[in-house]
Amino acid sequence: MHGNSTSQKQHQELLLTNARLVTMIAGEQGYYVSPASELYIKSGKLITSNNDVPHNIKTYDCNNKLITPGFIDCHTHLVYAGNRANEFEMRLNGVPYSDIAKQGGGILSTVKATRNATQEELVEYALPRLDGLIRSGVTTVEVKSGYGLTLIDEIKMLRAAKALQSHRKINIVTTLLAAHAIPPEYQGKADDYIQLICQEIIPLVAEEKLASSVDVFCESIGFNLEQTEKVFIAAKQYGLDVKGHTEQLSNLGGTALTAQYKGLSADHIEYLDKEGVEILANSDTVATLLPGAFYFLRETQLPPIALLRQHKIPMAIATDVNPGTSPFSDLTMMMNMGCTLFGLTPEETLRGVTCNAAKALGLGDVKGQIRDGFDADLAIWDVEHPADFSYQQGIARLSARVINGEVDHV
Amino acid sequence: MHGNSTSQKQHQELLLTNARLVTMIAGEQGYYVSPASELYIKSGKLITSNNDVPHNIKTYDCNNKLITPGFIDCHTHLVYAGNRANEFEMRLNGVPYSDIAKQGGGILSTVKATRNATQEELVEYALPRLDGLIRSGVTTVEVKSGYGLTLIDEIKMLRAAKALQSHRKINIVTTLLAAHAIPPEYQGKADDYIQLICQEIIPLVAEEKLASSVDVFCESIGFNLEQTEKVFIAAKQYGLDVKGHTEQLSNLGGTALTAQYKGLSADHIEYLDKEGVEILANSDTVATLLPGAFYFLRETQLPPIALLRQHKIPMAIATDVNPGTSPFSDLTMMMNMGCTLFGLTPEETLRGVTCNAAKALGLGDVKGQIRDGFDADLAIWDVEHPADFSYQQGIARLSARVINGEVDHV
Ligand SMILES: [Zn+2]
Ligand SMILES: [Zn+2]
Repeated sequence: MHGNSTSQKQHQELLLTNARLVTMIAGEQGYYVSPASELYIKSGKLITSNNDVPHNIKTYDCNNKLITPGFIDCHTHLVYAGNRANEFEMRLNGVPYSDIAKQGGGILSTVKATRNATQEELVEYALPRLDGLIRSGVTTVEVKSGYGLTLIDEIKMLRAAKALQSHRKINIVTTLLAAHAIPPEYQGKADDYIQLICQEIIPLVAEEKLASSVDVFCESIGFNLEQTEKVFIAAKQYGLDVKGHTEQLSNLGGTALTAQYKGLSADHIEYLDKEGVEILANSDTVATLLPGAFYFLRETQLPPIALLRQHKIPMAIATDVNPGTSPFSDLTMMMNMGCTLFGLTPEETLRGVTCNAAKALGLGDVKGQIRDGFDADLAIWDVEHPADFSYQQGIARLSARVINGEVDHV
Repeated sequence: MHGNSTSQKQHQELLLTNARLVTMIAGEQGYYVSPASELYIKSGKLITSNNDVPHNIKTYDCNNKLITPGFIDCHTHLVYAGNRANEFEMRLNGVPYSDIAKQGGGILSTVKATRNATQEELVEYALPRLDGLIRSGVTTVEVKSGYGLTLIDEIKMLRAAKALQSHRKINIVTTLLAAHAIPPEYQGKADDYIQLICQEIIPLVAEEKLASSVDVFCESIGFNLEQTEKVFIAAKQYGLDVKGHTEQLSNLGGTALTAQYKGLSADHIEYLDKEGVEILANSDTVATLLPGAFYFLRETQLPPIALLRQHKIPMAIATDVNPGTSPFSDLTMMMNMGCTLFGLTPEETLRGVTCNAAKALGLGDVKGQIRDGFDADLAIWDVEHPADFSYQQGIARLSARVINGEVDHV
């Protein structure tokens, strides 16, 4: 009987040896890569503060491989049903978007399929996409609702997202995005839908702890500033964090509003102007860049990278996995796009999926860095130099992940 | 003893059942997807002409999965040594290319590393990249030399390429690209190097059957038309096919020259003009599009897709895997880029990696189609509709490959 607690304790301790650590400490410049080192893990946390490592501890030889914080994908729409390959094909065959929409295409086709799916089906459909992220070294994924657009279907999506954790070794962070699109039943009655969100959906989601934050698609084709603010106010009232899909297609002021409400992140921001950047600079809000959507939409307006850099605003990079504008389940490919399309440096993209992505999820003090007391979520790579994550694509470089202190082999 | 020949014969026969076949017959319009069918394979060939299938044959249940011809990557520089992640990073940190070149960067850094590597090392370095292609359903890969730039090193590269076949189930087609760059020893003496290629390298490569075709980088920063023609003449003299890296950065007339010499393919062709397209239309030369290099170089000049289409010129799509301009070992990602960046349809990109890619390798009569008598190289996919290859990326969809009639599980 006593043996049980001992074995459990051993299980919770691990010593990585011969680990070249890429620490990604927030705020530092350049990446520090340690020589082959030991890294002690206890009760799911990294212990770097003392060398008091017990003897006979379980070890894992990293063989000089590169160890990074586990990658964090801080903006995804991973859970949905349906497949829009047909729509993709119609568009490339020159069918106008209006005709595709008339035939039930666009986001509403995903809404319809998602409403018709059970929670279990949503999990089943999301797993291959999640596995793609896991292969790119991800240990934490944010997942948004937003294809249900009813109380019951939004909750079903959030439950499906959380249930992914019982199928894979992964940390899931859920976000309520009921304000993603106006549901077909509410056409012309967007304010009524906002009322439903604020008075029914947010309260229940908060009560059942189904999401830790609330997101709004603040755009001419989404929700206006006033509607966005109503959602933010309701979210705050119920103790939830806020964030925004802002300045993706036009400069509406959503980023400034998000910063004003102490939002975790303002996402997309291709059309953010100098004034908006300055407001962001005076906030604690992360700028989350989504180069997959920029690429897939053949957008030409670049996010204001030079200004963001100049103001030292933390930038995150995410996949934005979704069927309409970013059907890509590969986070390192997004790092390459961040460099190739946005001119980010490989260090900026690596910060974008580690320390800055953690901050974008309100987890900047516990995840995304190899640092004393931080969560033991790591990725172990067959990679020589950290710039390689952003450079080569299509090769299998992940050797193993460590999640909550336990090694998960590929 | 008699049992041996029987088992061998059984081994050479296979019946795929419940296979939804995407046949990709050259010249047809649209893709035909069969209902769940049987496909008989004998001695490494597809037999669709009769239903004379023997009893007790070994079967493989495809479970309604989609079966395509094995994908063909008809333009790669898969074999090389060294890693240019550092150079990628320097460029993104604003270091001018001239400084990078002074520090030994650029193609000559790959040449130096490749010369210093043994044949066995070249194989070892190429395998992770090859595995990336295999995961994207590839059964045949063209591999070029071109980083040796001496008789001995070009031959070493071609031998390494062929040796890949003893490490993986894959068909390798080799191309001599000695005329890839002017070697450092021949600076200012390009004509002398061309003479070496024509009088020594081509004859030996032909004699030892190390390559079936000869390629030239015909460009202002490569070799001029006259030099290209000399190489083509020598290649033809020794019974080798020709092809060209043409009109990638400027309109030099390399595509027309390639067509004139009955070249297998003219590759890149962003700067090909109307006149050039018309010459191509009157030839049997395939237009090979390389969207990875277009993307990575942030090129803005699009290849003349509408004209190519109008003239019904067969278009192939390839990765161009190489360390300088397309570090991507993922053929379906290139299909997505073909659609997203070039406006190709999913059907065009699928033809581009099957029937048209086979034609670009001079194998149009034996590979790239599911057709009677063709080689039994197939890919078996967890995919509902063929448009999905070009659409979603980052998910593992390959269920198995069939190479020369034998099933190779993922
Ligand atoms: Zn989004
Ligand atoms: Zn090439």
